[in-house]
Amino acid sequence: MSSETNGSPPSCKVMVTGAAGFMGKKLVAKIVTDGGKLKDGRTATELILMDVVKPSGPEGDSIPFTVKAVEGDLSVAEDMTSLMSVKPDVIFHLAAIVSGDAEKNFEKGYSINMDGTRNLLEAIRSIDGYTPRIVFASSAAVFGGSVPDPIPDTHHLTPRTSYGTQKAICELLVDDYSRKGYVDGISIRFPTISVRPGKPNKAASSFISGIIREPLAGVETICPVGRHIKHPVASPRRAVEYLLTAASIPTEELTKGSRSFTMPAIRVSVGEMLDAMEKVAGKEVLDLVKMETDEFLEGIIGNWQFNFESKRAKELGFQPDKCFEDIVQAHIDDELGGAVHKAKKTKEDA
Amino acid sequence: MSSETNGSPPSCKVMVTGAAGFMGKKLVAKIVTDGGKLKDGRTATELILMDVVKPSGPEGDSIPFTVKAVEGDLSVAEDMTSLMSVKPDVIFHLAAIVSGDAEKNFEKGYSINMDGTRNLLEAIRSIDGYTPRIVFASSAAVFGGSVPDPIPDTHHLTPRTSYGTQKAICELLVDDYSRKGYVDGISIRFPTISVRPGKPNKAASSFISGIIREPLAGVETICPVGRHIKHPVASPRRAVEYLLTAASIPTEELTKGSRSFTMPAIRVSVGEMLDAMEKVAGKEVLDLVKMETDEFLEGIIGNWQFNFESKRAKELGFQPDKCFEDIVQAHIDDELGGAVHKAKKTKEDA
Repeated sequence: MSSETNGSPPSCKVMVTGAAGFMGKKLVAKIVTDGGKLKDGRTATELILMDVVKPSGPEGDSIPFTVKAVEGDLSVAEDMTSLMSVKPDVIFHLAAIVSGDAEKNFEKGYSINMDGTRNLLEAIRSIDGYTPRIVFASSAAVFGGSVPDPIPDTHHLTPRTSYGTQKAICELLVDDYSRKGYVDGISIRFPTISVRPGKPNKAASSFISGIIREPLAGVETICPVGRHIKHPVASPRRAVEYLLTAASIPTEELTKGSRSFTMPAIRVSVGEMLDAMEKVAGKEVLDLVKMETDEFLEGIIGNWQFNFESKRAKELGFQPDKCFEDIVQAHIDDELGGAVHKAKKTKEDA
Repeated sequence: MSSETNGSPPSCKVMVTGAAGFMGKKLVAKIVTDGGKLKDGRTATELILMDVVKPSGPEGDSIPFTVKAVEGDLSVAEDMTSLMSVKPDVIFHLAAIVSGDAEKNFEKGYSINMDGTRNLLEAIRSIDGYTPRIVFASSAAVFGGSVPDPIPDTHHLTPRTSYGTQKAICELLVDDYSRKGYVDGISIRFPTISVRPGKPNKAASSFISGIIREPLAGVETICPVGRHIKHPVASPRRAVEYLLTAASIPTEELTKGSRSFTMPAIRVSVGEMLDAMEKVAGKEVLDLVKMETDEFLEGIIGNWQFNFESKRAKELGFQPDKCFEDIVQAHIDDELGGAVHKAKKTKEDA
């Protein structure tokens, strides 16, 4: 799996699927920043970036490892077999059809999210004596319907979307392939990531990022739910930390129970989110948020006021964000070059 | 789905997959005994029996419905498409590779138990406006590892076998296909069925039936675990009742939560099982059981002393056996023509 030479730290090959996505890019940037050093002391000597379109990787002479970008389709078994022949030691499996798309396109969702993950696992299984750590990006969408507060680690998975169903199925696959010794897997369930950079999307929870991201960029936005609605979130920085922590958890910890972990989130009310933004960025920014309740949307979001216990995850070193103010500040630092755009713009101007 | 003519009860077509198996045969026999009448008042006008080898169906002029026996391989999508073209209203999906086999033959288990079920669901989905009730035979093998006592309905599934993993995955598929309106599914998780007729098999729990079945047939047998070991069981009669109850539960009850139900079992210690047998059949029969602890086996079985709460199932009318004496008596009535073979035989004579 890794080799140690002349006292230098053990080296390893790292692969990221879905490397062109928002999370993939953040993860790769962090690995570059860390000089390829993983949390368990191993150092990446090679970084393989895979996506359905060839991802653009980091560039520059200062990168202390090889970067390879490859095009591959998870739903094509041969692509996965060819991809795995390089035998990465650590695979971050982030590639997926997002929830809205998977709900609308039933076959596509199952093809990529379920069959694709199985193709990846099968490609690994087909190589004798090869048992990489695979970090599977699951989702809190595995939960649904009526849930207790808090949701304990032992709560059953009753997804209410095809996306959540596919994630839950892949968790079971990762667990069984691991139990059989074909992979050394861990599934981590992400809560809503906020503040997500980029554009709004069609997810019902899209506004959770939007009510912070748009005003901080000087753009008016609508908050479609009341201030009392709570939502569990983790920052993009935290999400990347979770992935890297998962890559380095000793196998013996994973064999003690389920290999699926609900990532810690902070549950914050919309009012608290907006207050935190005001505190960090000022009233002028907060004024860009218009409260216009959309009852249908509030109904959906009202069912997602999850409070995760995340007991095992916390014991293994997955620690949540400290507070929402920090999340707002991190977004300003990481995405806005440290400064808030004070000029008021309407949506149309943006 | 069903048609009502001239005041006669609504008719329906019923299909059984795995019809050549022990459970399939018992179910078919019961449907015949009931004259095709289901618990919701519908009457079967056609019974389609499917298995990987053409099953032998019930025969006789007194059968008040058509019986068709067909050969089909779940792992062949085309077989399932062709099978479903007759559009049964109720499908009992019992066909599966058993646990020991699925554990030993990884690919075969996934191919039949997971892909096979998906092929069946896909074949149904491909027919417009067709939403049959599918009763999926799941298993308590979806549970594993450390579990609470009792196991509540909301406990997570952490199977420790590939068979259990495949059953858990199919439950998720049945739920999602139902949510999307492609099928109207229900998954029922069977505990160990005892007294299972036939021969011992390689399942670790095989002796649970064996310690009753063999002595009642006048054959010596070994009990490989101590009298204190408890195990959840349901009788074959009860299992058939569970299937028939599941076929008739109104859809509106199933949309209230998960469509997976842990079937009620009675948890009985091995000592209580043997005492019950003695009570029903006499000391002479009990004397055919030799206590010889196999520590390895006792270790495995010791982890399966599950106590299921089965709250929702009981509310919906799934009721467990009354006591183990009744289970013993039912076996004598159903399998031994009402009489116990008193002649002492050694294993070799049998």
